[in-house]
Amino acid sequence: MSHPHPGLPAPPALPEHGLRIVALGGLGEIGRNMTVFEHGGRLLIVDCGVLFPETEQPGIDLILPDFEYIRDRLDLIDAVILTHGHEDHIGAVPYLLRERPDIPLVGSRLTLALLEAKLTEHRIRPVTREVSEGQRVRFGPFDCEFLAVNHSIPDALAVAIRTPAGLVLATGDFKMDQLPLDGRLTDLGGFARLGAEGIDLLLSDSTNAEVPGFVTSERSIGPVVDEVFATAQERIIVACFASHIHRVQQVLDAAVACGRRVCFIGRSMVRNMGVARELGYLRVPDGVMVEPKQLDDVPPDRLVLVCTGSQGEPMSALSRMAGRDHQIRITERDTVMLASSLIPGNETAVNRVINGLTRWGARVVHKGNALVHVSGHASAGELLYVLNMTRPGNFMPIHGEWRHLRAHAKLAALTGVPEDNIVIAEDGVVVDLVDGHASIVGAVPAGYVYVDGLSVGEVTETSLKDRRILGEEGFVSIVVGVDSTSGKVVAGPEIHARGAGIANEDFDQIIERLEAVLQDAATSGAADLHQMNQVVRRTVGKWVNDNYRRRPMIIPVVVEV
Amino acid sequence: MSHPHPGLPAPPALPEHGLRIVALGGLGEIGRNMTVFEHGGRLLIVDCGVLFPETEQPGIDLILPDFEYIRDRLDLIDAVILTHGHEDHIGAVPYLLRERPDIPLVGSRLTLALLEAKLTEHRIRPVTREVSEGQRVRFGPFDCEFLAVNHSIPDALAVAIRTPAGLVLATGDFKMDQLPLDGRLTDLGGFARLGAEGIDLLLSDSTNAEVPGFVTSERSIGPVVDEVFATAQERIIVACFASHIHRVQQVLDAAVACGRRVCFIGRSMVRNMGVARELGYLRVPDGVMVEPKQLDDVPPDRLVLVCTGSQGEPMSALSRMAGRDHQIRITERDTVMLASSLIPGNETAVNRVINGLTRWGARVVHKGNALVHVSGHASAGELLYVLNMTRPGNFMPIHGEWRHLRAHAKLAALTGVPEDNIVIAEDGVVVDLVDGHASIVGAVPAGYVYVDGLSVGEVTETSLKDRRILGEEGFVSIVVGVDSTSGKVVAGPEIHARGAGIANEDFDQIIERLEAVLQDAATSGAADLHQMNQVVRRTVGKWVNDNYRRRPMIIPVVVEV
Repeated sequence: MSHPHPGLPAPPALPEHGLRIVALGGLGEIGRNMTVFEHGGRLLIVDCGVLFPETEQPGIDLILPDFEYIRDRLDLIDAVILTHGHEDHIGAVPYLLRERPDIPLVGSRLTLALLEAKLTEHRIRPVTREVSEGQRVRFGPFDCEFLAVNHSIPDALAVAIRTPAGLVLATGDFKMDQLPLDGRLTDLGGFARLGAEGIDLLLSDSTNAEVPGFVTSERSIGPVVDEVFATAQERIIVACFASHIHRVQQVLDAAVACGRRVCFIGRSMVRNMGVARELGYLRVPDGVMVEPKQLDDVPPDRLVLVCTGSQGEPMSALSRMAGRDHQIRITERDTVMLASSLIPGNETAVNRVINGLTRWGARVVHKGNALVHVSGHASAGELLYVLNMTRPGNFMPIHGEWRHLRAHAKLAALTGVPEDNIVIAEDGVVVDLVDGHASIVGAVPAGYVYVDGLSVGEVTETSLKDRRILGEEGFVSIVVGVDSTSGKVVAGPEIHARGAGIANEDFDQIIERLEAVLQDAATSGAADLHQMNQVVRRTVGKWVNDNYRRRPMIIPVVVEV
Repeated sequence: MSHPHPGLPAPPALPEHGLRIVALGGLGEIGRNMTVFEHGGRLLIVDCGVLFPETEQPGIDLILPDFEYIRDRLDLIDAVILTHGHEDHIGAVPYLLRERPDIPLVGSRLTLALLEAKLTEHRIRPVTREVSEGQRVRFGPFDCEFLAVNHSIPDALAVAIRTPAGLVLATGDFKMDQLPLDGRLTDLGGFARLGAEGIDLLLSDSTNAEVPGFVTSERSIGPVVDEVFATAQERIIVACFASHIHRVQQVLDAAVACGRRVCFIGRSMVRNMGVARELGYLRVPDGVMVEPKQLDDVPPDRLVLVCTGSQGEPMSALSRMAGRDHQIRITERDTVMLASSLIPGNETAVNRVINGLTRWGARVVHKGNALVHVSGHASAGELLYVLNMTRPGNFMPIHGEWRHLRAHAKLAALTGVPEDNIVIAEDGVVVDLVDGHASIVGAVPAGYVYVDGLSVGEVTETSLKDRRILGEEGFVSIVVGVDSTSGKVVAGPEIHARGAGIANEDFDQIIERLEAVLQDAATSGAADLHQMNQVVRRTVGKWVNDNYRRRPMIIPVVVEV
């Protein structure tokens, strides 16, 4: 197995008959999936998603792939293929289109509909091309064949890319539910046919490569939902992802079966279910839906609310209900179901919601105590099927952190892929498929691009480092006005501190110390503004550390008057 | 079941024949366990622990119980009983002793030894009284009997407290390993004897009340450790809690069995294992230990390192190894075992460590992929045994978040405790046991007291709110010097921003806008310093929000010269 090294060189020129594969996201992380394929001077992109920030990225709204690698060559992009409609696969498209609005977007009917609803909010009218499983479409030198895959959103696709360099199969996100609610199976037969033709490189979803066995069918959630509905005293509140149309369908079906009416709550839930219903992906019997305004007209034991907030998002309706900060006041007669995964990093937030709801006496049903969620990603057992059916010449695990990529690589080795033909790459690592062999040849920049409010890329690692210090320690700023000729202090020192936890009465001590130090500096006559700033910073920093053992950010502001 | 309500009144006077129970920590949270018992004008305290901060408490080192409730009555405390040596039960003792140094500390041999080692670091020489299971000792009006319990640290005790108000059994933290490594079982027979005598109130550990079934024996980890040791290529690095003596013993035994030598790494690990070895709780055969300095003399395939850092603590040796920021450079031949629980809230940090180690090729064994940890807290099955053996008149679940307290209350109801005799309280809620009935009568302050560096209690919720804003958004400070008579700007505006992600070139625009606004204010002649500060704050805040959709902290500093 090849391992990437920090400090890989810039890549050499791509041989004319070779195919270059560069992931700008999704390798070494779960999210912002984006892979750039290059052949014959043209580019094909598969997916363009966002990553959601963790606590080390305070204040950040979204993290994008860095488009720098393709910025000079946007006109060479023949298509962006979107494998399905999840944010980590389509969320960065609006930002890419800002740089070239007419890049053709390719995807299934539902994927494009969800993407277009999103782009409308960004006031972008995209160029789209709808495709479906079984179709074979050429984009520049890239001959693409689409195959059905089953995932936690309908209408997901895998894509086989043929170029003179060979045949590549990219699975996208998938699992292999053998009894899917919509009857649309992952096309394992198609994978086998491609395998027989000869797959030179397989890129396959690694998210659950560490999990042994097989994902339980989405269908098995139905009876659990039925049981919860049958035993609920009054209101039922279900939180799940706004894109999980099949999950919502099961909730709708259970509601209909026991004569309850349903209300969607939350902008993304309303928007996505509207799209899904319009296109026929969600079946809603007449008279079931109720508008938020009419909630008071429905008895609590006839009501189901379906909302977002299953990840404990602080501003969501569910979090506010848990904190008694919402018009819906949770009581002992309510049942709340968190019918979703628990995305790593959200544990504390979700725990807070569960405790809040429990405190008011609600029955809380979640994946920890009932089968109300199954994963959307193939487990190790399913991944082995794919490896054995495709028999790839080379294998590159995608969509995962290091632990997932390595676990998937191990599965590939167990099925007989030679270790030398297994490539573990991370974001920005350049992999060339040349003469039937895939290998790492270099690296390009693939850092995080932060969206914060209206700005994209302006908040840098330095800003985040400052935020982390400010967030942990607060700051102390000291303003001193000095006479521009004499150097004497004519105003201040004035101290402002926030978040530093320094008692106000201690300010006087700091000021006294500072005045002495500044007088010395003025008397010696040697101090310029820069030096005086330094003196202030050192004096205050030392005082705080000596007295508090803390290191707030010290901001000296010495101004000449 | 009685439910506490926010807005409970101050409690009435305690009837002379009653017993008052107030938890200052541990109810509604996992940590800072501390319960105050009051009878006949005297106080008995059980446990005095710390809570570790979460991300909403940035920069905080520790969270203490609020001693305010007992501050005026410290001289009335007859004893502080420490049920075992974990930080969430003993960690706040140094801070309590600062307020009255001669409070008698009562605990088992190991508990006191660990506590004294800790107090030595705080330069405190405590008054102690060693007790052991089977003993019955009177502290003021509190007649205390100690019973053995099994937990994830040796020598843990439950305590039965007899007063004229009745018999109370407080389990402390416990589980019921039926094949404990040290042969010291939880004294269920003793619980039954007390039950036959008549327990008026049971306080029992709720941590795992939601988990069905029984905790697997600590003993079952041995074979897993043996297997990992047998198949390890070269170095073995084991991370676990520095207090888990039995876990370390199993690692030591495995090391001896395969001829490896062992090195302890990390201050708390070295300190605690020294104490445990000296007192005979840890058996270390001669010639097994090796000092950190001698590591290079031992071949890597003969070496086991035992360290802390199993919770992903950023400064720990293990985290630094994962980030290649430690002299021990992880390779593909290393095996790393995280032989510990994953404390809620630490998931992201631990995931980062696992990914870091995996990236360098190490085999990482953790509770997600092998049985290398069992819980120290009784599961629902075990809790039912205790409830059925003790048949308490009243029941109060302790040590847990709301979800755990409610689950435990439900178990008590299932075993026949009348709902009216089950008290779910949270921190600060006052429970009186009077005439055989326990009920909530009021509440006292029990907020968080923050330790940050050297200061205790000086960092307030306001400081933390400031830190959260600063950490999410950064700040912009604007210094303006104005002439004290004319009100004209004579220095600045000078702008400093950190963490706000505002481009430097934009500062000029803000300054231009500010100058115009300040000139207006000066011309109108009406502006005092306060008003000018307001004008600056509003102008800059609006500009940043309009241009960036962000809300950094705005700090205007208008100084008179």
